[in-house]
Amino acid sequence: MSAWLGIDSLAMKPADATATPDLIGKIKELADFKRLPVEALPDLADQIRAFLVSKVSRTGGHIGPNLGVVELTMAIHRIFDSPTDRVIFDTGHQSYVHKVLTGRGDGFDQLRKRDGLTGYPSQAESEHDFVENSHASTALSYADGLAKAHVLRGEKRHVVAVVGDGALTGGMCWEALNNIAARKDLPLVIVVNDNGRSYAPTIGGLASHLSSLRLNPSYEKMLDSVREALGRTPVVGPPLFEAMHAVKRGIKDAVAPQVMFEDLGLKYVGPVDGHDIDALMSALEKAKNFGGPVIVHAITKKGNGYQPAEDDVDDCLHSPSSAFDPETGKTLAKSAKKWTGVFADELVKVAEERDDVVGITAAMAIPTGIDKLAHRFPERVFDVGIAEQHAATSAAGLALGGLHPVAAIYSTFLNRAFDQVLLDVAMHKLGVTFVLDRAGITGPDGPSHYGIWDMAVFRVIPGIRIAAPRDEATLREEFRECLDVNDGPTIVRFPTGAVAADLPAIERFDGVDVLAHGNRRDVLLVACGAFATNAMAAAELLTEQGFGVTVVDPRFVAPVPAALLPMAAEHRYVVTLEDGVRTGGFGDALAKELRDAGIDRPLRDLGVTPGWHPHGSRAELLADLDLTPEAVAEAIRDLAGRGSRQPEQPELPLAPKQAAAKPEKTEAKTVAKPVKAAKEPA
Amino acid sequence: MSAWLGIDSLAMKPADATATPDLIGKIKELADFKRLPVEALPDLADQIRAFLVSKVSRTGGHIGPNLGVVELTMAIHRIFDSPTDRVIFDTGHQSYVHKVLTGRGDGFDQLRKRDGLTGYPSQAESEHDFVENSHASTALSYADGLAKAHVLRGEKRHVVAVVGDGALTGGMCWEALNNIAARKDLPLVIVVNDNGRSYAPTIGGLASHLSSLRLNPSYEKMLDSVREALGRTPVVGPPLFEAMHAVKRGIKDAVAPQVMFEDLGLKYVGPVDGHDIDALMSALEKAKNFGGPVIVHAITKKGNGYQPAEDDVDDCLHSPSSAFDPETGKTLAKSAKKWTGVFADELVKVAEERDDVVGITAAMAIPTGIDKLAHRFPERVFDVGIAEQHAATSAAGLALGGLHPVAAIYSTFLNRAFDQVLLDVAMHKLGVTFVLDRAGITGPDGPSHYGIWDMAVFRVIPGIRIAAPRDEATLREEFRECLDVNDGPTIVRFPTGAVAADLPAIERFDGVDVLAHGNRRDVLLVACGAFATNAMAAAELLTEQGFGVTVVDPRFVAPVPAALLPMAAEHRYVVTLEDGVRTGGFGDALAKELRDAGIDRPLRDLGVTPGWHPHGSRAELLADLDLTPEAVAEAIRDLAGRGSRQPEQPELPLAPKQAAAKPEKTEAKTVAKPVKAAKEPA
Repeated sequence: MSAWLGIDSLAMKPADATATPDLIGKIKELADFKRLPVEALPDLADQIRAFLVSKVSRTGGHIGPNLGVVELTMAIHRIFDSPTDRVIFDTGHQSYVHKVLTGRGDGFDQLRKRDGLTGYPSQAESEHDFVENSHASTALSYADGLAKAHVLRGEKRHVVAVVGDGALTGGMCWEALNNIAARKDLPLVIVVNDNGRSYAPTIGGLASHLSSLRLNPSYEKMLDSVREALGRTPVVGPPLFEAMHAVKRGIKDAVAPQVMFEDLGLKYVGPVDGHDIDALMSALEKAKNFGGPVIVHAITKKGNGYQPAEDDVDDCLHSPSSAFDPETGKTLAKSAKKWTGVFADELVKVAEERDDVVGITAAMAIPTGIDKLAHRFPERVFDVGIAEQHAATSAAGLALGGLHPVAAIYSTFLNRAFDQVLLDVAMHKLGVTFVLDRAGITGPDGPSHYGIWDMAVFRVIPGIRIAAPRDEATLREEFRECLDVNDGPTIVRFPTGAVAADLPAIERFDGVDVLAHGNRRDVLLVACGAFATNAMAAAELLTEQGFGVTVVDPRFVAPVPAALLPMAAEHRYVVTLEDGVRTGGFGDALAKELRDAGIDRPLRDLGVTPGWHPHGSRAELLADLDLTPEAVAEAIRDLAGRGSRQPEQPELPLAPKQAAAKPEKTEAKTVAKPVKAAKEPA
Repeated sequence: MSAWLGIDSLAMKPADATATPDLIGKIKELADFKRLPVEALPDLADQIRAFLVSKVSRTGGHIGPNLGVVELTMAIHRIFDSPTDRVIFDTGHQSYVHKVLTGRGDGFDQLRKRDGLTGYPSQAESEHDFVENSHASTALSYADGLAKAHVLRGEKRHVVAVVGDGALTGGMCWEALNNIAARKDLPLVIVVNDNGRSYAPTIGGLASHLSSLRLNPSYEKMLDSVREALGRTPVVGPPLFEAMHAVKRGIKDAVAPQVMFEDLGLKYVGPVDGHDIDALMSALEKAKNFGGPVIVHAITKKGNGYQPAEDDVDDCLHSPSSAFDPETGKTLAKSAKKWTGVFADELVKVAEERDDVVGITAAMAIPTGIDKLAHRFPERVFDVGIAEQHAATSAAGLALGGLHPVAAIYSTFLNRAFDQVLLDVAMHKLGVTFVLDRAGITGPDGPSHYGIWDMAVFRVIPGIRIAAPRDEATLREEFRECLDVNDGPTIVRFPTGAVAADLPAIERFDGVDVLAHGNRRDVLLVACGAFATNAMAAAELLTEQGFGVTVVDPRFVAPVPAALLPMAAEHRYVVTLEDGVRTGGFGDALAKELRDAGIDRPLRDLGVTPGWHPHGSRAELLADLDLTPEAVAEAIRDLAGRGSRQPEQPELPLAPKQAAAKPEKTEAKTVAKPVKAAKEPA
């Protein structure tokens, strides 16, 4: 078994070997870990690695980052006293080891499954999970506020923030460091987990400096010197720390500059070998006793101890979304055609036709598919780091300079650049296309990663155009339409996973695709993006129950296509269906247009109820949210059956709710073919 | 006249003296300035200072920052060739001198007036205004994108970005610098305009380093050395630059660290005396010829040459909003009680009662009134710099630590922290109160500063509570209600200027204030915040025309108070009035609640039409936007008169539009007293 782990060099014993007792099984709470003899820690580290590979290869999850922080997390929990001391991870996806050490090993069979262990810290799971952050670069800001609160309230607590070198490329970290540096009294330890890459190799001034430090031939020698300087002495006070600091300074000056930390006036310890638990504990002990803010710079190796992850230059093992082969690290999922791949393919095609098209990614070249463009035209792709604000405004600059940038960003992350899209792009009337992958309910990453806000939030931007393609053909088509817009921002949003089955339009009416005509004009069902499939299935159910349903796809959800207004006027009821939060979403927007035009039709807007919906599979979540075809059909029957409370309410022409037979489950699970269409225009 | 300018030491001749010809009057376009002999430039600088003080003292505007960049702007335009080279100001409020030099001196009588010169760069005004940015810290991102576009397209242009030291506290600058440093080929000159304060003295690691540099006794001597090192030699190539760079390095090491720039690998020139035009031109010339990205660090004095602005430690002359006495710098506006002052007063009172209340400002302590708390409890106020993201998440940290932070931020600037309020505050269910000053249409600063987005954007955050007080009493009351919320974010939003006249409620019905009852239940007029005053005036007009109007203030605009639903059901029409963008605003939210409850009532939502509305006075803008009492009354008559297109539309009980006499202008301008109220419950 140890062969596939590729960690023979660590002399690790596999978890099922009898030579070493099962240490993980003994850890029911943090105190159990803290009681282990120091000598057992290297064995535990090996066991944790084997455990994580074994478990996560079945569930999917952030395997690479967590293999890199095994010793670091252990050292932190040996030196600090959680939950009295507050340990914060940036981002929270590097908290698996922390979960094991705080007694949650048993939960890993259900990692990221519905009702199972979350993939991020969770207050509900443990008193040791204090901050549930999952977007990068926030931990230092939390830590700044927390430490200030402790000082004001006279509480003796340390705050430990673990931040990746990739997260440091985000501006929030700089804002926080600038503030932390001004407060010499904050008991705050910043552990920089420097693995030289965040999601992927990150380019920039910071990265090249850290890299020059690691690549320097004298690195190993220097590490020894640092270890020697730090010693293994017992607790020391500030003066000794200062002395060691000076030693370290001398070493530093001989090797490479230490980026900005010391210039800001922050105390610095490092670099420390992030896989040497003794060295880590020694450094953290000193940092803890210094009293003010200190940076501990740990050099780690992403995927450490698991050869497929160590060799994973493409970062496929950062966070495989589903099971993988533990021997090879290769995913076991069938290679269905994905939304991301369709976009990536079309982007390359367009770029071959148009010189002005360039790509931008915020440290997510592979997950967003923009790496395909980078392979084809390396000089036309810019990876800006985990820096969505800069991504948006530098895109504005590129557009000002005559190019048409395509910024590919997860839906949940573009929220960080709302102000920049509003003022720097839209107010300047610049043609920038934002491609939002992972839009809608995504699933196992939980509420912080759902792309359910974009339609509501970005719709308020004057002049913006937001496309929600429903299948491969419309993704390619609408993406190209966005690239032809040069006077303002455009968005193309689509979900994760396999692209929806082709759903050709019966006709296109002023930009709106008619997907199905009912035999009567009872209900106009307006379905956004990938929900067109669900709408068709719901329409089939309703048709069987005697309702006449017209299904249309607006293609662009902002602005609301004018063609929808006469369509709505010709139907008795209007229902909208969107893969986003209901508050201020497409349904509200269509309702407003109808009001403004004086068209009074009962309208029901179906979408995601605002809230923090827990993780699970997309199918489970859609069922919870009443967004399955059956639930959609039921909501429509309810609308027709309930009517309004107006005294002048006409008699209901439609089947009342109680008369509508509940559809068979099996029937509803299948994706319906287009409802037989009358050929009359909508 | 020169006495009041306090610039005798500069041997400046006042603009009206005959000894020196009027240089400003000769500048009709940039070429005129570039043709002036170098010897005339110091005289021109003096004249520009006198000109700006004279003009801006009548109109209001950003006087302090612009007096600091007179020589800097002149030097830039002598060395670079706008518009071939692109000059970008961060923020744009330091572009007055640039406007003078590009031939817009004549426009200053109408600065920030309707149809007059804008207070920021404007593409419509001049080909030399390329980026209209006004929110801080964006210029380097624009510059990064622009320069990359120039390189890709093979265009020979320089990009010059002028950025204040205050703007450097914003994370976007760090993100941009990290990217720029990675591109040695970008012809990009970053001019750091270091006056040691942005809006106000800014605290932080960066600030203390820059400050230590300036305060060092050897500063003057060093400046001389730098000047000598830089020399006044003709154009030099990279090797000589490098040599000088080394000289500078030597000086630097003897004085103070140069913060992060060199650690990132960016070339650096400076510090240069920002009021020595020869030294500036020499430094810029070298930077221009270097070929790659260079930082030029200019030390300037805010308000330079105008004693009241130089002495203005409270930064009142950063941007007086209206006319001031040029002799003293004191504002001429009557000291009406302002929204800001009421908030500041109540904050101090609450803080005296509750130990857990602390304040946060993003470099705007005085404009937001949080300085009052800082004077009372200095240790309980945190100025985080121009860093709204950090403000929000460090507030989350403070709340996690058991405190209740009050983050006072202009409405337009909180947009930068949407993601942080969403995930770091709301998802974590933390009690943080955001106080949004300058909400709604503000006026002379133009579209980038209007606080019209907050109600639409932040309403999508699950669980958020947004209060829109209508007068002094409700501001105090609702602010305290927000401070009692400890399980999620709250917002209190109010406009700028004098607080609205007291408008007491007739009764409070489940949290909704009834301000007036009509004699019939024709129209329910729901007015948000300060628009209650306009609503009352509109109701008076409508009452005279035979309509029965009930006016209510929901107090909290999110969530929509449930009490509004039965009220709406008891009226024939519902009209909402809000000081924010219509898209996804309060009107849409109430409409959704009515739909969800099955209450069909014609609803009209009145608010700000989405768009980039030009600057002007608030009154002018509200007239343009059809938000005056007369326009509101007319919209209500229109709603009643138009009805809907439903076949079952009942006969209209109300006066048709043509029968309603247009009210007299004089009548409408007065603020109406509450409409005589029937004492029956709503």
